[in-house]
Amino acid sequence: MADSRFGMVEPGELPEDLRERIGRIAEKSGFVPNIFRALGHRPAELRAFLDYHDALMDRADGLSKAERELVVVATSGANHCVYCVVAHGAILRIRSKDAQLADRVATNPWQVELDERARAIIDLALALTRRPELFGEDDIAAARAAGLSDDEIWDVGAITALFAMSNRLAHLTALQPNPEFYTMARIQRQ
Amino acid sequence: MADSRFGMVEPGELPEDLRERIGRIAEKSGFVPNIFRALGHRPAELRAFLDYHDALMDRADGLSKAERELVVVATSGANHCVYCVVAHGAILRIRSKDAQLADRVATNPWQVELDERARAIIDLALALTRRPELFGEDDIAAARAAGLSDDEIWDVGAITALFAMSNRLAHLTALQPNPEFYTMARIQRQ
Amino acid sequence: MADSRFGMVEPGELPEDLRERIGRIAEKSGFVPNIFRALGHRPAELRAFLDYHDALMDRADGLSKAERELVVVATSGANHCVYCVVAHGAILRIRSKDAQLADRVATNPWQVELDERARAIIDLALALTRRPELFGEDDIAAARAAGLSDDEIWDVGAITALFAMSNRLAHLTALQPNPEFYTMARIQRQ
Amino acid sequence: MADSRFGMVEPGELPEDLRERIGRIAEKSGFVPNIFRALGHRPAELRAFLDYHDALMDRADGLSKAERELVVVATSGANHCVYCVVAHGAILRIRSKDAQLADRVATNPWQVELDERARAIIDLALALTRRPELFGEDDIAAARAAGLSDDEIWDVGAITALFAMSNRLAHLTALQPNPEFYTMARIQRQ
Amino acid sequence: MADSRFGMVEPGELPEDLRERIGRIAEKSGFVPNIFRALGHRPAELRAFLDYHDALMDRADGLSKAERELVVVATSGANHCVYCVVAHGAILRIRSKDAQLADRVATNPWQVELDERARAIIDLALALTRRPELFGEDDIAAARAAGLSDDEIWDVGAITALFAMSNRLAHLTALQPNPEFYTMARIQRQ
Amino acid sequence: MADSRFGMVEPGELPEDLRERIGRIAEKSGFVPNIFRALGHRPAELRAFLDYHDALMDRADGLSKAERELVVVATSGANHCVYCVVAHGAILRIRSKDAQLADRVATNPWQVELDERARAIIDLALALTRRPELFGEDDIAAARAAGLSDDEIWDVGAITALFAMSNRLAHLTALQPNPEFYTMARIQRQ
Repeated sequence: MADSRFGMVEPGELPEDLRERIGRIAEKSGFVPNIFRALGHRPAELRAFLDYHDALMDRADGLSKAERELVVVATSGANHCVYCVVAHGAILRIRSKDAQLADRVATNPWQVELDERARAIIDLALALTRRPELFGEDDIAAARAAGLSDDEIWDVGAITALFAMSNRLAHLTALQPNPEFYTMARIQRQ
Repeated sequence: MADSRFGMVEPGELPEDLRERIGRIAEKSGFVPNIFRALGHRPAELRAFLDYHDALMDRADGLSKAERELVVVATSGANHCVYCVVAHGAILRIRSKDAQLADRVATNPWQVELDERARAIIDLALALTRRPELFGEDDIAAARAAGLSDDEIWDVGAITALFAMSNRLAHLTALQPNPEFYTMARIQRQ
Repeated sequence: MADSRFGMVEPGELPEDLRERIGRIAEKSGFVPNIFRALGHRPAELRAFLDYHDALMDRADGLSKAERELVVVATSGANHCVYCVVAHGAILRIRSKDAQLADRVATNPWQVELDERARAIIDLALALTRRPELFGEDDIAAARAAGLSDDEIWDVGAITALFAMSNRLAHLTALQPNPEFYTMARIQRQ
Repeated sequence: MADSRFGMVEPGELPEDLRERIGRIAEKSGFVPNIFRALGHRPAELRAFLDYHDALMDRADGLSKAERELVVVATSGANHCVYCVVAHGAILRIRSKDAQLADRVATNPWQVELDERARAIIDLALALTRRPELFGEDDIAAARAAGLSDDEIWDVGAITALFAMSNRLAHLTALQPNPEFYTMARIQRQ
Repeated sequence: MADSRFGMVEPGELPEDLRERIGRIAEKSGFVPNIFRALGHRPAELRAFLDYHDALMDRADGLSKAERELVVVATSGANHCVYCVVAHGAILRIRSKDAQLADRVATNPWQVELDERARAIIDLALALTRRPELFGEDDIAAARAAGLSDDEIWDVGAITALFAMSNRLAHLTALQPNPEFYTMARIQRQ
Repeated sequence: MADSRFGMVEPGELPEDLRERIGRIAEKSGFVPNIFRALGHRPAELRAFLDYHDALMDRADGLSKAERELVVVATSGANHCVYCVVAHGAILRIRSKDAQLADRVATNPWQVELDERARAIIDLALALTRRPELFGEDDIAAARAAGLSDDEIWDVGAITALFAMSNRLAHLTALQPNPEFYTMARIQRQ
């Protein structure tokens, strides 16, 4: 089984800015996540992908880091994206300090039991994920009623939109998760 | 009816690089497309959006300009995105020099009559648009059988993915098309 | 691309009553709408179709003319019927004196922003269009709560039913819109 | 439980032509089928409905009478229309001289075991019933491959379209079958 | 047409306990329901099937016998299972002493008119039948609001689950109803 | 978060045969799987459930143990059942000696890359899982073409049917996986 349908580009083959950028990620993670090797065929697209990702996932205001990953895992579960569920499931385990949440959210985001705020976040994401034509004022109103600010609503919606793209890039390339992601943070520290 | 659910940012309020970039688009079109005013709340996201868009839509190799817009209109039609259908419908009329194609593709991308290559392009896009978990080797094989190269297949898939995001940003913001888009290139020059 | 999968019958080939009836329509429109040429193969069916259409679309009581076309465009959009969306989109532009409404309703009838009465009309139509087995007392009650009378509810339901048929006849015959429909009433008179 | 959501009109209250026409049906059946009493509120619509019905269901050429009812029961089953399934199930039992076929077709038209011609007829009808936007050349080609003529294909498609309307009128009016229909022709004569 | 895709096992070929058990059923009904002959290939599975069936369908507490069959017919209708609809339709006619209810429930369980308790029972069953991932506290709350006890809710849910299995065994084996089921209890005794 | 919506029954509270039977499972696993505690409210149902489970999952002939779990994980993934995916995912990791397969199958059973036999097994299971009314001869023929015997086809179908039930019992009871299942066999022995 290949890691990607269209082959991989190793960091050393990338333009310098991307080589350094991916290098920093690899140093931190201990490995190069396969998504970067798969998108490396198109440096301009990879660069924009990274910029968009960082603008939304590393943003200081709005949702917490764990909440951002919650949106990613919920929408990736609803889209049945193996790479995104396994890779971001690992990150959600780290960010949420909860070893079981990611598997539960990815398997059934619609009914996983959560506190009111987290449920409102996921409901908003799901409303936009599979049948976006039905998204409307009722969804916005429900999010506001649960206490989400408009800035937080934008975060949820924009992350959902970003992973609507990212999930499809993974489906397009038949992207496989790095083996490391499957086992990261499986044991919860008490 | 507001043009966007979360208000608009005028070009003059944007960071200089974006102000200039949007300015060039406005000069060429005669108006500022509403998507840029709606995304202006988040300059870093707008910048990444523009970079991603240009990397895919202005690319020299692979699909023709008209074929790229065909993918956009088909996927936006399948996602029932008013802004994207009206705005990119106008661009498709211009690029394809066909005043009727866009309305036909947007209304029923699954069965609009097209030549074999265009049909293969849209079929590939549609396979990734609504039920991406079913996308697989059969779809790739059908595209190759119709003569698409792997580089062209990537183009189709990546544009579909980009507009999976873009459609959802428009749904999120309840974005309205500029009035100009409705009437552009409606009369076919013979 | 043929205008219809099973060929066309010209008005001159029709029985006299239909020839005169289609003639009057052609005189008013300036052309013979393709639906009449496509259904001309079966004069008895065409005659019943015209009678049903006139009984519902030219009725004096109940919904306004513009509201009737709103139902047609919403249901035809939800059914992805190219002929009906383009032809009745043109008529809706004329009847509503709104050059943009038809494109917005056809693209996303579920969420297009409308006043309360128009929203109630479309919601009722949509409830019957795609999953009629779920139609029930809740839909009737919502329509009544928005002020629709039972006579108006019948109008909405019966027009939706008529175009459930009409949309499928267009799909059956792969019917193409006359070129004139694409451009009619695109420029809004102020 | 009322027989219809909007009340009934008795034959005696109808215009003379309809009173006579319904009278002849009642004489033949032994009772007035409820659909006529429910549509009687709108004589012009009832008249067009009867004309359309007779043009398609009593046509001498093309499909046999039993095949026409097979299309009606299959499409009504797929649309979960109680009135149409029970009433036309009875007629199918009579026309096909098969006491079990109607229940089997109505319950699962997609997989009921049939000879090749009947299967092709139902497949064509089903392709147009629930997701008409996907109907296309492949469906026509499959029907032709099974030996259906274009005239027969039109019959199947047009009857499916007529009952797309008729099913929805029954859903709109919450129409109940006459008790007689449930038991007609249940015992197969050998 | 065979009665089952994988052939039948006659009672005489079964282990003694099953032969006696099926014998008692046959004595009561006047015939051996085909499901037992089809599952007879695997005596251990047939035995567990009968045990599960009896534990739920012959239980003294909770739902009435007629209500249990109502759940079976509703879920089998929603799953388009010919064997289950025809066989349990017959049993529902007997248990409910209503000759028309079964046909109405099987054809459109979502909207068939029922008293509040029966409607709540069917709504709960349907929520679990087709999209079980959406089943949740709202469904439980609605059932409780209609007066169902937790013991009755378990009955509804467990019978729905049992027939999710049973329906699929019938689809797997292309099981045909015994002719007797079609006509049983069609005439309502007054 | 409760482990089950209707509370739990501890093994000590069960009839003796079930207490011993669950005891043997607990001894082997090191813990009592929550499904048995949740179903313990109804000993007769639990007993039949265990009998059915053992008849199919411990059967000597036909599919291998790993293949049986593959069917369970695929169908439970398609049904979004958290308990079944997590618990049987663990068992599949053990049976298949593959630490990653279960997560991949559960997340996207439709497109996970597998050898031809495993793909045929899952395709057959999926055909029966979500839209069983479409299951038919084509599905059987595809399985046979991939080399499955009728006995193996029955295994796949019957396990799919059993977990159609089991998944719904877990949804009904909002069943939570035991913490042990999340981490079992995560590290692949080389």
